[in-house]
Amino acid sequence: MTTTQVDQRVSLAVSTVIFALRPDPSTGRQTLWLPLVRRIREPYEGKWALPGGPLEAHEDLAASARHTLERTTGLGDSYLEQLYSFGAVDRSPDRVVSIVYWALVRPDEDARAIDGENVEWFVADDVPDLAFDHDDIVRYALDRLRAKITYSPIAHAFLADEFTLAELREVHEAVLRKSLDPANFRRQVLAGRTIEPTGTCLTGTSHRPPALYRAAARPEEIAR
Amino acid sequence: MTTTQVDQRVSLAVSTVIFALRPDPSTGRQTLWLPLVRRIREPYEGKWALPGGPLEAHEDLAASARHTLERTTGLGDSYLEQLYSFGAVDRSPDRVVSIVYWALVRPDEDARAIDGENVEWFVADDVPDLAFDHDDIVRYALDRLRAKITYSPIAHAFLADEFTLAELREVHEAVLRKSLDPANFRRQVLAGRTIEPTGTCLTGTSHRPPALYRAAARPEEIAR
Repeated sequence: MTTTQVDQRVSLAVSTVIFALRPDPSTGRQTLWLPLVRRIREPYEGKWALPGGPLEAHEDLAASARHTLERTTGLGDSYLEQLYSFGAVDRSPDRVVSIVYWALVRPDEDARAIDGENVEWFVADDVPDLAFDHDDIVRYALDRLRAKITYSPIAHAFLADEFTLAELREVHEAVLRKSLDPANFRRQVLAGRTIEPTGTCLTGTSHRPPALYRAAARPEEIAR
Repeated sequence: MTTTQVDQRVSLAVSTVIFALRPDPSTGRQTLWLPLVRRIREPYEGKWALPGGPLEAHEDLAASARHTLERTTGLGDSYLEQLYSFGAVDRSPDRVVSIVYWALVRPDEDARAIDGENVEWFVADDVPDLAFDHDDIVRYALDRLRAKITYSPIAHAFLADEFTLAELREVHEAVLRKSLDPANFRRQVLAGRTIEPTGTCLTGTSHRPPALYRAAARPEEIAR
Protein backbone atom coordinates (compact mmCIF):
# COMPACT_ATOMS: atom_id res chain seq x y z
CA MET A 1 0.00 0.00 0.00
CA THR A 2 3.03 2.29 0.32
CA THR A 3 3.37 4.77 -2.54
CA THR A 4 6.55 3.87 -4.39
CA GLN A 5 8.26 5.18 -7.49
CA VAL A 6 6.94 2.27 -9.52
CA ASP A 7 3.43 2.65 -8.19
CA GLN A 8 3.20 6.32 -9.19
CA ARG A 9 3.71 5.50 -12.85
CA VAL A 10 0.26 3.86 -12.97
CA SER A 11 -2.51 6.41 -13.18
CA LEU A 12 -6.19 5.82 -12.72
CA ALA A 13 -9.15 6.90 -14.83
CA VAL A 14 -12.88 6.31 -14.40
CA SER A 15 -14.96 5.90 -17.57
CA THR A 16 -18.71 5.44 -17.93
CA VAL A 17 -20.65 3.47 -20.52
CA ILE A 18 -24.04 5.19 -20.70
CA PHE A 19 -26.73 3.08 -22.36
CA ALA A 20 -30.09 4.46 -23.46
CA LEU A 21 -32.79 2.97 -25.69
CA ARG A 22 -33.64 4.98 -28.79
CA PRO A 23 -35.01 4.04 -32.21
CA ASP A 24 -32.61 2.48 -34.69
CA PRO A 25 -32.32 4.94 -37.61
CA SER A 26 -32.79 2.20 -40.25
CA THR A 27 -35.45 -0.06 -38.69
CA GLY A 28 -37.19 2.34 -36.30
CA ARG A 29 -37.07 -0.32 -33.57
CA GLN A 30 -35.70 0.52 -30.13
CA THR A 31 -32.02 -0.29 -29.77
CA LEU A 32 -29.10 0.51 -27.45
CA TRP A 33 -27.28 3.81 -27.92
CA LEU A 34 -24.39 5.35 -26.04
CA PRO A 35 -22.68 8.76 -26.01
CA LEU A 36 -19.03 9.10 -27.02
CA VAL A 37 -16.68 12.05 -26.66
CA ARG A 38 -14.32 13.21 -29.40
CA ARG A 39 -10.78 13.48 -28.01
CA ILE A 40 -9.24 16.92 -28.38
CA ARG A 41 -5.69 15.93 -27.42
CA GLU A 42 -3.14 13.16 -27.86
CA PRO A 43 -3.11 10.23 -27.53
CA TYR A 44 -5.80 9.35 -30.07
CA GLU A 45 -6.63 13.00 -30.85
CA GLY A 46 -9.75 13.18 -33.01
CA LYS A 47 -10.90 9.63 -32.11
CA TRP A 48 -14.11 8.89 -30.24
CA ALA A 49 -13.78 7.61 -26.68
CA LEU A 50 -15.95 6.75 -23.71
CA PRO A 51 -16.64 9.73 -21.47
CA GLY A 52 -14.52 9.85 -18.31
CA GLY A 53 -11.31 11.22 -16.91
CA PRO A 54 -8.64 10.87 -14.24
CA LEU A 55 -9.85 10.00 -10.76
CA GLU A 56 -9.43 13.05 -8.58
CA ALA A 57 -8.05 12.60 -5.08
CA HIS A 58 -11.19 13.89 -3.33
CA GLU A 59 -13.68 11.81 -5.38
CA ASP A 60 -14.74 8.26 -4.77
CA LEU A 61 -15.22 5.99 -7.78
CA ALA A 62 -19.00 6.18 -8.13
CA ALA A 63 -18.95 9.97 -7.64
CA SER A 64 -16.47 10.29 -10.48
CA ALA A 65 -18.65 8.13 -12.73
CA ARG A 66 -21.75 10.11 -11.78
CA HIS A 67 -20.03 13.41 -12.58
CA THR A 68 -19.16 12.01 -15.99
CA LEU A 69 -22.79 11.00 -16.47
CA GLU A 70 -23.91 14.53 -15.50
CA ARG A 71 -21.35 16.23 -17.74
CA THR A 72 -22.24 14.01 -20.69
CA THR A 73 -26.03 13.83 -20.43
CA GLY A 74 -27.28 16.37 -17.90
CA LEU A 75 -28.62 13.46 -15.83
CA GLY A 76 -27.76 12.75 -12.22
CA ASP A 77 -29.87 9.98 -10.78
CA SER A 78 -29.80 7.17 -13.33
CA TYR A 79 -28.97 3.58 -12.45
CA LEU A 80 -25.19 3.38 -12.06
CA GLU A 81 -23.09 0.30 -11.35
CA GLN A 82 -19.43 -0.58 -11.44
CA LEU A 83 -18.80 -2.79 -14.46
CA TYR A 84 -15.14 -3.85 -14.58
CA SER A 85 -11.60 -2.51 -14.41
CA PHE A 86 -9.38 -2.61 -17.47
CA GLY A 87 -5.65 -2.60 -16.88
CA ALA A 88 -3.73 -4.22 -19.73
CA VAL A 89 -0.18 -2.83 -19.80
CA ASP A 90 -0.43 -1.75 -23.45
CA ARG A 91 -3.95 -0.29 -23.46
CA SER A 92 -2.61 3.27 -23.54
CA PRO A 93 0.77 4.90 -24.34
CA ASP A 94 0.92 5.92 -20.66
CA ARG A 95 0.13 3.29 -18.07
CA VAL A 96 -3.51 3.96 -17.22
CA VAL A 97 -5.96 1.65 -15.46
CA SER A 98 -9.61 2.48 -16.19
CA ILE A 99 -12.34 1.58 -13.74
CA VAL A 100 -15.49 1.43 -15.82
CA TYR A 101 -19.05 2.07 -14.63
CA TRP A 102 -22.19 1.72 -16.62
CA ALA A 103 -25.28 3.88 -16.41
CA LEU A 104 -28.69 2.83 -17.72
CA VAL A 105 -30.91 5.75 -18.65
CA ARG A 106 -34.69 5.73 -18.47
CA PRO A 107 -36.67 7.12 -21.40
CA ASP A 108 -38.18 9.96 -19.37
CA GLU A 109 -34.66 10.91 -18.18
CA ASP A 110 -33.21 10.64 -21.64
CA ALA A 111 -35.60 13.32 -22.90
CA ARG A 112 -33.77 15.84 -20.72
CA ALA A 113 -30.31 14.95 -22.04
CA ILE A 114 -27.99 17.83 -22.87
CA ASP A 115 -25.37 17.02 -25.49
CA GLY A 116 -22.08 18.89 -25.25
CA GLU A 117 -20.36 20.00 -28.43
CA ASN A 118 -17.84 17.12 -28.38
CA VAL A 119 -20.46 14.53 -27.42
CA GLU A 120 -22.37 12.45 -29.95
CA TRP A 121 -24.67 9.45 -29.52
CA PHE A 122 -24.04 6.23 -31.48
CA VAL A 123 -25.82 2.91 -31.92
CA ALA A 124 -23.90 0.79 -29.38
CA ASP A 125 -23.45 -2.18 -31.72
CA ASP A 126 -22.13 0.07 -34.47
CA VAL A 127 -19.59 2.44 -32.93
CA PRO A 128 -16.64 3.79 -34.94
CA ASP A 129 -13.08 2.62 -34.21
CA LEU A 130 -12.50 3.97 -30.69
CA ALA A 131 -9.49 5.30 -28.77
CA PHE A 132 -7.52 3.07 -26.35
CA ASP A 133 -9.24 -0.31 -25.73
CA HIS A 134 -12.65 1.33 -25.61
CA ASP A 135 -13.98 -0.94 -28.38
CA ASP A 136 -13.28 -3.88 -26.07
CA ILE A 137 -14.96 -2.09 -23.18
CA VAL A 138 -18.13 -1.38 -25.19
CA ARG A 139 -18.24 -5.00 -26.35
CA TYR A 140 -17.74 -6.20 -22.76
CA ALA A 141 -20.55 -3.94 -21.55
CA LEU A 142 -22.92 -5.17 -24.27
CA ASP A 143 -22.11 -8.83 -23.53
CA ARG A 144 -22.57 -8.24 -19.83
CA LEU A 145 -25.90 -6.44 -20.27
CA ARG A 146 -27.20 -9.18 -22.56
CA ALA A 147 -26.20 -11.87 -20.06
CA LYS A 148 -27.49 -10.00 -17.04
CA ILE A 149 -30.92 -9.20 -18.48
CA THR A 150 -31.60 -12.95 -18.67
CA TYR A 151 -31.15 -13.58 -14.93
CA SER A 152 -31.78 -10.25 -13.20
CA PRO A 153 -34.42 -7.51 -13.32
CA ILE A 154 -31.92 -4.96 -14.70
CA ALA A 155 -34.35 -4.14 -17.54
CA HIS A 156 -36.33 -2.07 -15.02
CA ALA A 157 -33.56 0.51 -15.10
CA PHE A 158 -34.69 1.45 -18.62
CA LEU A 159 -38.33 1.91 -17.60
CA ALA A 160 -40.42 4.44 -15.71
CA ASP A 161 -41.64 3.42 -12.25
CA GLU A 162 -44.80 1.90 -13.72
CA PHE A 163 -44.84 -0.05 -16.96
CA THR A 164 -46.86 -2.57 -18.91
CA LEU A 165 -45.66 -6.09 -19.68
CA ALA A 166 -45.40 -5.06 -23.34
CA GLU A 167 -43.05 -2.20 -22.42
CA LEU A 168 -40.88 -4.57 -20.35
CA ARG A 169 -40.78 -7.06 -23.21
CA GLU A 170 -39.77 -4.31 -25.64
CA VAL A 171 -36.78 -3.49 -23.42
CA HIS A 172 -35.72 -7.17 -23.48
CA GLU A 173 -36.20 -7.28 -27.23
CA ALA A 174 -34.17 -4.11 -27.78
CA VAL A 175 -31.30 -5.31 -25.58
CA LEU A 176 -31.27 -8.84 -26.97
CA ARG A 177 -32.00 -7.71 -30.54
CA LYS A 178 -34.60 -10.39 -31.14
CA SER A 179 -38.36 -10.81 -30.91
CA LEU A 180 -39.77 -12.62 -27.88
CA ASP A 181 -43.04 -14.50 -27.74
CA PRO A 182 -45.43 -12.34 -25.66
CA ALA A 183 -47.15 -15.26 -23.89
CA ASN A 184 -43.87 -17.00 -22.98
CA PHE A 185 -42.35 -13.75 -21.84
CA ARG A 186 -45.35 -12.95 -19.66
CA ARG A 187 -45.24 -16.38 -18.03
CA GLN A 188 -41.50 -16.25 -17.35
CA VAL A 189 -41.53 -12.74 -15.93
CA LEU A 190 -44.48 -13.37 -13.65
CA ALA A 191 -42.86 -16.62 -12.43
CA GLY A 192 -39.67 -14.68 -11.57
CA ARG A 193 -41.58 -12.46 -9.12
CA THR A 194 -39.44 -9.44 -9.94
CA ILE A 195 -42.48 -7.31 -10.70
CA GLU A 196 -45.82 -6.76 -9.00
CA PRO A 197 -49.10 -5.31 -10.30
CA THR A 198 -49.84 -1.74 -9.24
CA GLY A 199 -53.55 -2.52 -9.29
CA THR A 200 -54.14 0.11 -12.01
CA CYS A 201 -54.24 0.07 -15.79
CA LEU A 202 -52.71 2.23 -18.48
CA THR A 203 -55.25 4.95 -19.22
CA GLY A 204 -56.00 5.57 -22.86
CA THR A 205 -58.46 4.84 -25.60
CA SER A 206 -58.16 1.06 -25.54
CA HIS A 207 -61.20 -1.02 -24.62
CA ARG A 208 -58.92 -3.42 -22.77
CA PRO A 209 -56.27 -1.21 -21.17
CA PRO A 210 -53.15 -3.18 -20.16
CA ALA A 211 -52.31 -3.63 -16.46
CA LEU A 212 -49.47 -1.62 -14.97
CA TYR A 213 -46.63 -3.22 -13.00
CA ARG A 214 -43.77 -1.93 -10.90
CA ALA A 215 -40.45 -3.47 -9.85
CA ALA A 216 -40.63 -5.66 -6.76
CA ALA A 217 -36.99 -4.75 -6.06
CA ARG A 218 -35.15 -1.54 -6.87
CA PRO A 219 -32.43 -1.95 -9.52
CA GLU A 220 -29.80 -0.96 -6.92
CA GLU A 221 -30.66 -4.11 -4.99
CA ILE A 222 -30.13 -6.47 -7.91
CA ALA A 223 -27.61 -9.20 -7.15
CA ARG A 224 -24.62 -8.90 -9.40
CA MET B 1 -6.04 10.40 -19.28
CA THR B 2 -3.23 12.95 -18.82
CA THR B 3 -1.22 12.41 -15.66
CA THR B 4 -1.83 15.46 -13.50
CA GLN B 5 -0.72 16.50 -10.03
CA VAL B 6 -4.10 15.52 -8.64
CA ASP B 7 -4.12 12.20 -10.41
CA GLN B 8 -0.74 11.15 -8.99
CA ARG B 9 -2.02 11.35 -5.44
CA VAL B 10 -4.23 8.30 -6.07
CA SER B 11 -2.29 5.06 -5.97
CA LEU B 12 -3.45 1.66 -7.03
CA ALA B 13 -3.25 -1.70 -5.25
CA VAL B 14 -4.43 -5.16 -6.28
CA SER B 15 -5.66 -7.47 -3.51
CA THR B 16 -6.83 -11.07 -3.75
CA VAL B 17 -9.48 -12.86 -1.70
CA ILE B 18 -8.44 -16.54 -1.81
CA PHE B 19 -11.23 -18.91 -0.81
CA ALA B 20 -10.66 -22.59 -0.04
CA LEU B 21 -12.92 -25.18 1.58
CA ARG B 22 -11.57 -26.77 4.75
CA PRO B 23 -13.22 -28.30 7.82
CA ASP B 24 -14.65 -25.94 10.41
CA PRO B 25 -12.64 -26.50 13.63
CA SER B 26 -15.75 -26.69 15.81
CA THR B 27 -18.21 -28.64 13.63
CA GLY B 28 -15.86 -30.55 11.33
CA ARG B 29 -18.04 -29.59 8.34
CA GLN B 30 -16.48 -28.04 5.26
CA THR B 31 -16.53 -24.24 5.33
CA LEU B 32 -14.88 -21.29 3.55
CA TRP B 33 -11.41 -20.24 4.67
CA LEU B 34 -9.12 -17.51 3.42
CA PRO B 35 -5.49 -16.52 4.02
CA LEU B 36 -4.63 -13.16 5.57
CA VAL B 37 -1.28 -11.42 5.91
CA ARG B 38 -0.14 -9.68 9.08
CA ARG B 39 0.97 -6.13 8.28
CA ILE B 40 4.56 -5.37 9.26
CA ARG B 41 4.36 -1.59 8.69
CA GLU B 42 2.05 1.37 9.14
CA PRO B 43 -0.73 2.05 8.49
CA TYR B 44 -2.44 -0.70 10.50
CA GLU B 45 0.86 -2.32 11.58
CA GLY B 46 0.15 -5.65 13.27
CA LYS B 47 -3.37 -5.97 11.81
CA TRP B 48 -4.39 -8.70 9.42
CA ALA B 49 -5.08 -7.72 5.82
CA LEU B 50 -5.88 -9.31 2.48
CA PRO B 51 -2.79 -10.32 0.53
CA GLY B 52 -1.84 -7.91 -2.25
CA GLY B 53 0.26 -4.91 -3.02
CA PRO B 54 0.79 -1.93 -5.28
CA LEU B 55 0.22 -2.51 -8.98
CA GLU B 56 3.59 -2.46 -10.71
CA ALA B 57 3.89 -0.59 -13.99
CA HIS B 58 4.83 -3.68 -16.02
CA GLU B 59 2.06 -5.95 -14.63
CA ASP B 60 -1.50 -6.20 -15.77
CA LEU B 61 -4.22 -6.58 -13.16
CA ALA B 62 -4.79 -10.33 -13.33
CA ALA B 63 -1.02 -10.98 -13.37
CA SER B 64 -0.66 -8.97 -10.18
CA ALA B 65 -3.48 -10.93 -8.53
CA ARG B 66 -1.97 -14.22 -9.68
CA HIS B 67 1.44 -13.29 -8.27
CA THR B 68 -0.25 -12.58 -4.94
CA LEU B 69 -1.96 -15.96 -5.12
CA GLU B 70 1.38 -17.64 -5.81
CA ARG B 71 3.20 -15.75 -3.04
CA THR B 72 0.46 -16.53 -0.54
CA THR B 73 -0.37 -20.14 -1.35
CA GLY B 74 2.24 -21.56 -3.73
CA LEU B 75 -0.54 -22.05 -6.30
CA GLY B 76 -0.56 -20.66 -9.81
CA ASP B 77 -3.46 -21.98 -11.83
CA SER B 78 -6.53 -21.66 -9.64
CA TYR B 79 -9.74 -20.02 -10.81
CA LEU B 80 -9.19 -16.28 -10.68
CA GLU B 81 -11.70 -13.52 -11.44
CA GLN B 82 -11.91 -9.80 -10.93
CA LEU B 83 -14.37 -9.11 -8.14
CA TYR B 84 -14.74 -5.35 -7.62
CA SER B 85 -12.77 -2.14 -7.12
CA PHE B 86 -12.91 -0.33 -3.81
CA GLY B 87 -12.11 3.37 -3.84
CA ALA B 88 -13.78 5.23 -0.97
CA VAL B 89 -11.79 8.39 -0.24
CA ASP B 90 -11.29 7.52 3.45
CA ARG B 91 -10.53 3.80 3.16
CA SER B 92 -6.82 4.38 3.81
CA PRO B 93 -4.75 7.25 5.27
CA ASP B 94 -3.20 7.62 1.80
CA ARG B 95 -5.54 7.67 -1.18
CA VAL B 96 -5.43 4.09 -2.44
CA VAL B 97 -7.87 2.38 -4.79
CA SER B 98 -7.82 -1.43 -4.50
CA ILE B 99 -8.84 -3.60 -7.41
CA VAL B 100 -9.86 -6.90 -5.83
CA TYR B 101 -9.71 -10.33 -7.43
CA TRP B 102 -10.91 -13.57 -5.97
CA ALA B 103 -9.34 -16.97 -6.37
CA LEU B 104 -11.17 -20.23 -5.68
CA VAL B 105 -8.86 -23.08 -4.74
CA ARG B 106 -9.56 -26.72 -5.46
CA PRO B 107 -8.97 -29.27 -2.69
CA ASP B 108 -6.19 -31.05 -4.59
CA GLU B 109 -4.47 -27.71 -5.16
CA ASP B 110 -4.95 -26.64 -1.59
CA ALA B 111 -2.93 -29.62 -0.37
CA ARG B 112 0.16 -28.06 -1.96
CA ALA B 113 -0.26 -24.70 -0.25
CA ILE B 114 2.84 -23.09 1.21
CA ASP B 115 2.15 -20.73 4.08
CA GLY B 116 4.59 -17.86 4.56
CA GLU B 117 5.51 -16.76 8.06
CA ASN B 118 3.17 -13.75 8.03
CA VAL B 119 0.32 -15.67 6.39
CA GLU B 120 -2.40 -17.43 8.37
CA TRP B 121 -5.69 -19.00 7.26
CA PHE B 122 -8.98 -17.99 8.92
CA VAL B 123 -12.60 -19.10 8.69
CA ALA B 124 -13.95 -16.52 6.22
CA ASP B 125 -17.09 -15.75 8.25
CA ASP B 126 -15.06 -15.24 11.41
CA VAL B 127 -12.07 -13.07 10.53
CA PRO B 128 -10.50 -10.70 13.07
CA ASP B 129 -10.88 -6.91 12.73
CA LEU B 130 -8.96 -6.22 9.50
CA ALA B 131 -6.85 -3.32 8.21
CA PHE B 132 -8.33 -0.70 5.85
CA ASP B 133 -11.83 -1.61 4.60
CA HIS B 134 -10.83 -5.24 4.18
CA ASP B 135 -13.68 -6.41 6.46
CA ASP B 136 -16.09 -4.87 3.94
CA ILE B 137 -14.23 -6.52 1.07
CA VAL B 138 -14.40 -9.98 2.67
CA ARG B 139 -18.11 -9.51 3.37
CA TYR B 140 -18.67 -8.36 -0.21
CA ALA B 141 -16.82 -11.41 -1.55
CA LEU B 142 -18.84 -13.78 0.65
CA ASP B 143 -22.14 -12.17 -0.40
CA ARG B 144 -21.13 -12.30 -4.03
CA LEU B 145 -20.04 -15.95 -3.87
CA ARG B 146 -23.28 -16.93 -2.10
CA ALA B 147 -25.35 -15.14 -4.74
CA LYS B 148 -23.34 -16.39 -7.68
CA ILE B 149 -23.38 -20.07 -6.66
CA THR B 150 -27.19 -20.00 -7.00
CA TYR B 151 -27.19 -18.99 -10.69
CA SER B 152 -23.82 -20.08 -12.08
CA PRO B 153 -21.64 -23.19 -12.04
CA ILE B 154 -18.91 -21.44 -10.03
CA ALA B 155 -18.96 -24.29 -7.48
CA HIS B 156 -16.96 -26.35 -9.98
CA ALA B 157 -13.93 -24.18 -9.22
CA PHE B 158 -13.75 -25.87 -5.80
CA LEU B 159 -13.82 -29.40 -7.26
CA ALA B 160 -11.48 -31.70 -9.12
CA ASP B 161 -12.19 -32.30 -12.83
CA GLU B 162 -14.50 -35.22 -12.03
CA PHE B 163 -16.85 -35.26 -9.08
CA THR B 164 -19.95 -36.93 -7.72
CA LEU B 165 -23.27 -35.15 -7.22
CA ALA B 166 -22.73 -35.54 -3.46
CA GLU B 167 -19.39 -33.72 -3.70
CA LEU B 168 -20.99 -30.91 -5.71
CA ARG B 169 -23.81 -30.65 -3.17
CA GLU B 170 -21.30 -30.49 -0.31
CA VAL B 171 -19.62 -27.49 -1.97
CA HIS B 172 -22.99 -25.73 -2.20
CA GLU B 173 -23.75 -26.61 1.43
CA ALA B 174 -20.36 -25.35 2.61
CA VAL B 175 -20.67 -22.05 0.72
CA LEU B 176 -24.32 -21.46 1.68
CA ARG B 177 -23.86 -22.83 5.24
CA LYS B 178 -27.03 -24.87 5.11
CA SER B 179 -28.10 -28.43 4.31
CA LEU B 180 -29.69 -29.08 0.93
CA ASP B 181 -32.10 -31.86 0.12
CA PRO B 182 -30.14 -34.38 -2.03
CA ALA B 183 -33.05 -35.24 -4.37
CA ASN B 184 -34.02 -31.60 -4.99
CA PHE B 185 -30.39 -30.65 -5.51
CA ARG B 186 -29.87 -33.46 -7.99
CA ARG B 187 -32.96 -32.48 -9.98
CA GLN B 188 -32.05 -28.78 -10.10
CA VAL B 189 -28.42 -29.36 -11.07
CA LEU B 190 -29.27 -31.81 -13.82
CA ALA B 191 -31.95 -29.44 -15.17
CA GLY B 192 -29.37 -26.63 -15.32
CA ARG B 193 -27.21 -28.65 -17.76
CA THR B 194 -23.99 -27.26 -16.28
CA ILE B 195 -22.58 -30.75 -15.72
CA GLU B 196 -22.44 -33.91 -17.80
CA PRO B 197 -21.81 -37.54 -16.83
CA THR B 198 -18.32 -38.86 -17.56
CA GLY B 199 -19.79 -42.33 -18.14
CA THR B 200 -17.75 -43.76 -15.25
CA CYS B 201 -18.34 -44.28 -11.55
CA LEU B 202 -16.34 -43.55 -8.44
CA THR B 203 -14.31 -46.69 -7.77
CA GLY B 204 -14.39 -47.98 -4.21
CA THR B 205 -15.97 -50.53 -1.97
CA SER B 206 -19.56 -49.43 -2.42
CA HIS B 207 -22.02 -51.84 -3.99
CA ARG B 208 -23.67 -48.89 -5.76
CA PRO B 209 -20.77 -46.62 -6.71
CA PRO B 210 -21.92 -43.04 -7.48
CA ALA B 211 -21.66 -41.72 -11.04
CA LEU B 212 -18.96 -39.20 -11.89
CA TYR B 213 -19.71 -35.87 -13.59
CA ARG B 214 -17.64 -33.12 -15.09
CA ALA B 215 -18.35 -29.46 -15.83
CA ALA B 216 -20.09 -28.83 -19.15
CA ALA B 217 -18.46 -25.36 -19.22
CA ARG B 218 -15.10 -24.32 -17.82
CA PRO B 219 -15.33 -21.89 -14.87
CA GLU B 220 -13.52 -19.24 -16.96
CA GLU B 221 -16.51 -19.21 -19.30
CA ILE B 222 -19.11 -18.59 -16.61
CA ALA B 223 -21.19 -15.49 -17.28
CA ARG B 224 -20.60 -12.90 -14.59
